[in-house]
Amino acid sequence: MINKLITRIKETNAPIVVGLDPMMKFVPEYIKKAAFTEYGETLEGAAEAIWQYNKGIVDAIYDLVPAVKPQVAMYEQFGIPGMVAFKKTVDYCKEKGLIVIGDIKRGDIGSTSEAYAVGHLGKVQVGSKSYYGFDEDFVTVNPYLGSDGVNPFVKICKEEKKGIFVLVKTSNPSSGEFQDQLVNGRPLYELVGEKVAAWGADCMGDSYSYVGAVVGATYPEQGKVLRKVMPKAFILVPGYGAQGGKGADLVHFFNEDGLGAIINSSRGIIAAYQQEKYAQFGEQNYADASRAAVLDMREDIAQALAAR
Amino acid sequence: MINKLITRIKETNAPIVVGLDPMMKFVPEYIKKAAFTEYGETLEGAAEAIWQYNKGIVDAIYDLVPAVKPQVAMYEQFGIPGMVAFKKTVDYCKEKGLIVIGDIKRGDIGSTSEAYAVGHLGKVQVGSKSYYGFDEDFVTVNPYLGSDGVNPFVKICKEEKKGIFVLVKTSNPSSGEFQDQLVNGRPLYELVGEKVAAWGADCMGDSYSYVGAVVGATYPEQGKVLRKVMPKAFILVPGYGAQGGKGADLVHFFNEDGLGAIINSSRGIIAAYQQEKYAQFGEQNYADASRAAVLDMREDIAQALAAR
Repeated sequence: MINKLITRIKETNAPIVVGLDPMMKFVPEYIKKAAFTEYGETLEGAAEAIWQYNKGIVDAIYDLVPAVKPQVAMYEQFGIPGMVAFKKTVDYCKEKGLIVIGDIKRGDIGSTSEAYAVGHLGKVQVGSKSYYGFDEDFVTVNPYLGSDGVNPFVKICKEEKKGIFVLVKTSNPSSGEFQDQLVNGRPLYELVGEKVAAWGADCMGDSYSYVGAVVGATYPEQGKVLRKVMPKAFILVPGYGAQGGKGADLVHFFNEDGLGAIINSSRGIIAAYQQEKYAQFGEQNYADASRAAVLDMREDIAQALAAR
Repeated sequence: MINKLITRIKETNAPIVVGLDPMMKFVPEYIKKAAFTEYGETLEGAAEAIWQYNKGIVDAIYDLVPAVKPQVAMYEQFGIPGMVAFKKTVDYCKEKGLIVIGDIKRGDIGSTSEAYAVGHLGKVQVGSKSYYGFDEDFVTVNPYLGSDGVNPFVKICKEEKKGIFVLVKTSNPSSGEFQDQLVNGRPLYELVGEKVAAWGADCMGDSYSYVGAVVGATYPEQGKVLRKVMPKAFILVPGYGAQGGKGADLVHFFNEDGLGAIINSSRGIIAAYQQEKYAQFGEQNYADASRAAVLDMREDIAQALAAR
């Protein structure tokens, strides 16, 4: 799957992943109205609204980008109907040829971590048969529990030729509270980065590992260091746009080959129509606004990479 | 909810939480057969099997213990039908008067963390109405992303008078890879423990905070230190039984008041019938074996506390 991701990045010339994090305040009123008319103001109604909203965006951008990243929390908050909308979104994106990165940030130990890996990347055994549960292509993983938490994911990645992105240095303001603490003179995130390189060493695609990392766009200097600490890890970079990361900050996350990073934007794309810059599209054409925002982001990144 | 937990611990004289982590290999053959006959060897069949299995155990132990802790990964691996079984289990346990600790180990940032908090502890807004998604009483939270990840849970805990247990020092062998790293001469888990105390300081129940901690039974010396670092945090202690923790190891997790800790056992109770010690019950009476195992565990803990 890492090979496919790289191929699609080259084909689209867009190292971009669109974060499908549908908050209700992003969903156009006409979509909410239709969903509530059909299902009432219920969890099912909310799930229908976010699903229709997602579908519009996916239809508008699927040819421009290699991947999408649905944030499961935004679905999980609507209980079972929300999880059904998550699964529909994953399936639909795959039908459209998109690679799906499930932003699940799961992490546990042993058989429990394996259950998450099985449920999201692999197949679960039921009697003599086996089934995919949610069936994303990649997922994000939290490393706080150490190798016991990550290795079960690596095992399933090898079986399924899928991948993970391990949280190393997250984009949020308080990420330093624990991640930046100095251990023998070096920040903890570097130690986690070294582990990412080790976990990924024996599950390599053609040029990058199945085991990638998450490093926030808001920390470009740390990105520069981590790029060297884990040269074969693809870096998923959140925090572009709404969180303050800029194109020029992103260059350090890429290797000399122009690869090695994929930049996420969520609300900057999916709620583009709510920005002044794209307001002329209007609510009805929210998906066209998203398409325009993807094109602008692609240009921003291309210029930044050309200028380095 | 922390007050209710303490009241129920006193009433039952059992600082015990039963981990409802239903692996298919624990489920008696006759239950699997009935479920597969009705639903086939499908995800629905698996979900029915684990639900019936859970129900039997809950019916056998609900009067003995204050709380249960379903591990969501064991349900999530079966996709949507698994999540439905999780929700049925949560609801049924609450009907039986049990406090439900959702072992979800979620953690993200800002609005995303709030979505998890809303989905599992709080109410989500849908138009003019609001709904509970999964509606546990407590959940476990991963602290790797810092205060940005934990504060949204604390906010919802205050609104709902519910609680969280933050991972501090986990029970697994490799938990030390990051958690034990020395920061200014002290292990990282102590720093996390201090944060737990800070996060919980302004959401106190009568004697303990809404914000608790997870510290593994397999690390009693660390438990002794952490008990002092966060005196008002209730400690959820996994790792008893199957993972090697013993009654005598547990005393350090309790305060002088005999409170402050609740010990989890999962397979040691739910799969007791598969142990030699309880084999005489037989598969058909698996739930009675679970009841006997709870009684033995209660006795083991009471003796350890009496001997200190």
